[in-house]
Amino acid sequence: MTPNNADLDSYLLNSAALVEDELDRLIPKAETEPQELHKAIRHSIFAGGKRLRPALLFATGEALGAPRAKLMTCAAAVEMIHTYSLIHDDLPSMDDDYLRRGLQTCHVKYGEATAILAGDVLQALAFEVVAADENLDYKTRVDLILDLAVAAGTPGGMAAGQQLDLQSEGKQITAEDLEQIHRKKTGALIVVSARAGARIGGAEPDVLRSVSQYADLLGLLYQITDDLLDVTQTTDVLGKTAGKDATAEKATYPSIYGIEETRKLAVDVHRRACEELVDLEDSTILMAIADRVLDRKA
Amino acid sequence: MTPNNADLDSYLLNSAALVEDELDRLIPKAETEPQELHKAIRHSIFAGGKRLRPALLFATGEALGAPRAKLMTCAAAVEMIHTYSLIHDDLPSMDDDYLRRGLQTCHVKYGEATAILAGDVLQALAFEVVAADENLDYKTRVDLILDLAVAAGTPGGMAAGQQLDLQSEGKQITAEDLEQIHRKKTGALIVVSARAGARIGGAEPDVLRSVSQYADLLGLLYQITDDLLDVTQTTDVLGKTAGKDATAEKATYPSIYGIEETRKLAVDVHRRACEELVDLEDSTILMAIADRVLDRKA
Repeated sequence: MTPNNADLDSYLLNSAALVEDELDRLIPKAETEPQELHKAIRHSIFAGGKRLRPALLFATGEALGAPRAKLMTCAAAVEMIHTYSLIHDDLPSMDDDYLRRGLQTCHVKYGEATAILAGDVLQALAFEVVAADENLDYKTRVDLILDLAVAAGTPGGMAAGQQLDLQSEGKQITAEDLEQIHRKKTGALIVVSARAGARIGGAEPDVLRSVSQYADLLGLLYQITDDLLDVTQTTDVLGKTAGKDATAEKATYPSIYGIEETRKLAVDVHRRACEELVDLEDSTILMAIADRVLDRKA
Repeated sequence: MTPNNADLDSYLLNSAALVEDELDRLIPKAETEPQELHKAIRHSIFAGGKRLRPALLFATGEALGAPRAKLMTCAAAVEMIHTYSLIHDDLPSMDDDYLRRGLQTCHVKYGEATAILAGDVLQALAFEVVAADENLDYKTRVDLILDLAVAAGTPGGMAAGQQLDLQSEGKQITAEDLEQIHRKKTGALIVVSARAGARIGGAEPDVLRSVSQYADLLGLLYQITDDLLDVTQTTDVLGKTAGKDATAEKATYPSIYGIEETRKLAVDVHRRACEELVDLEDSTILMAIADRVLDRKA
């Protein structure tokens, strides 16, 4: 059973509001020193992101019966890691982007040094808040921290993916290499978001595995539709610079397969993701999230 | 009882060799992808640092009877956090340094993007290896991770200290502000190194407190002697650019107190640090470390 769009919208709005309250609670106030650093962090983290990762964490945890109180802090931690990666990826020496979610990027507004430190702090804070989360037992905290750190680092995580992505600019790369880059750069953290919910929900190994598979395919789907949007939408709609991938000669799914084949690939990946959910008791929201990623307009 | 210099030298050499073996084991090989990233990490972490923090962790842990096997991975983690902070501090938008420990800084050799990612990875890896350390129980891992994250972050940690340090350039600041900056920027991680050894050694709260005080004063001493060396030594001896603080109009102890008063301050801080050790059973190495920091030449 798939909920109608209004149901998913209200789920996403609700979970975004909850995680934003939690982030506000966990991140030092803009009035405390060093103020510039805390303002820079808050500028980037409260820039109106879609909060897909926290929603995924909530949906997975709740599908397994975990109370929101146990999921809340880890959901905020995942969003901290995600935002740190965006701040660093936008830097002049990386993707050199000046617009993100319709706002100036962190280094444009606060300077490069502060932006680097804002990202550094968000990474540390993510681990800090999970370690300090008294709603979870020690073993669960350690498992979550380990998953998060592996997803953020190298060789299988986000930083490794960004390195490979930068190295691939202006080069011809294979579809397999491209998929590897995305798996590391964005997929790893999406998978960990779903796994975290499942871990907190006390999932058995086989459920943990199928949830991970679902999220892996969801991440792939997200990247495919991201590439499609970059070639088909305007900067205004995206809230970030459109057509940037082509300008930077980055390998993308459309540049390798063409737009029509890429659309078919998206439909196929969506189907495979949903198939992983058949054994879950209630996969309503997880199904709807996959639908939404397939059909997203921005 | 203070050991002679040869005893401390052999202790430091031995602990440095052990932590370097552990780092080599924990950090991905230069031949694995992304190679550039792993080479950059290894360039900076195997640049021949003094490994003061791991030595402090070993000495504290061993003073409380902890076996080296339990201390090893956390010692490596502390050095990862330290090296990550050096890589980021050296970046053009921060201190813009091109020489570190007598070698090219990470961004000069590998480019800015890779250097930023190398630092990011080292931070993630530090948390990863502690979380995965099966020699420690879950509670100890959580306590260590929490301490490390707080020391790395804001408002009391390294990143906050670096932000305040950058903001103070070219400004007149008070001695109190200067001390606050150093406490956050370098002191916090030094304190955590000693605390980590004490935690792994099962220290009672009062011992944890006096060890932390000792390390706090040791960190202060290290900064004071660092400032002194910057005005009294040459680039060649230091292995990094000398006289840089004055060029950057940074507030330093000599610029506030003058060289002679700064030397007296160093002697006083050293005495107070050693007084914290009176109740420890065997403080030989910890005493000798304080002596060495007071008398260091580079």
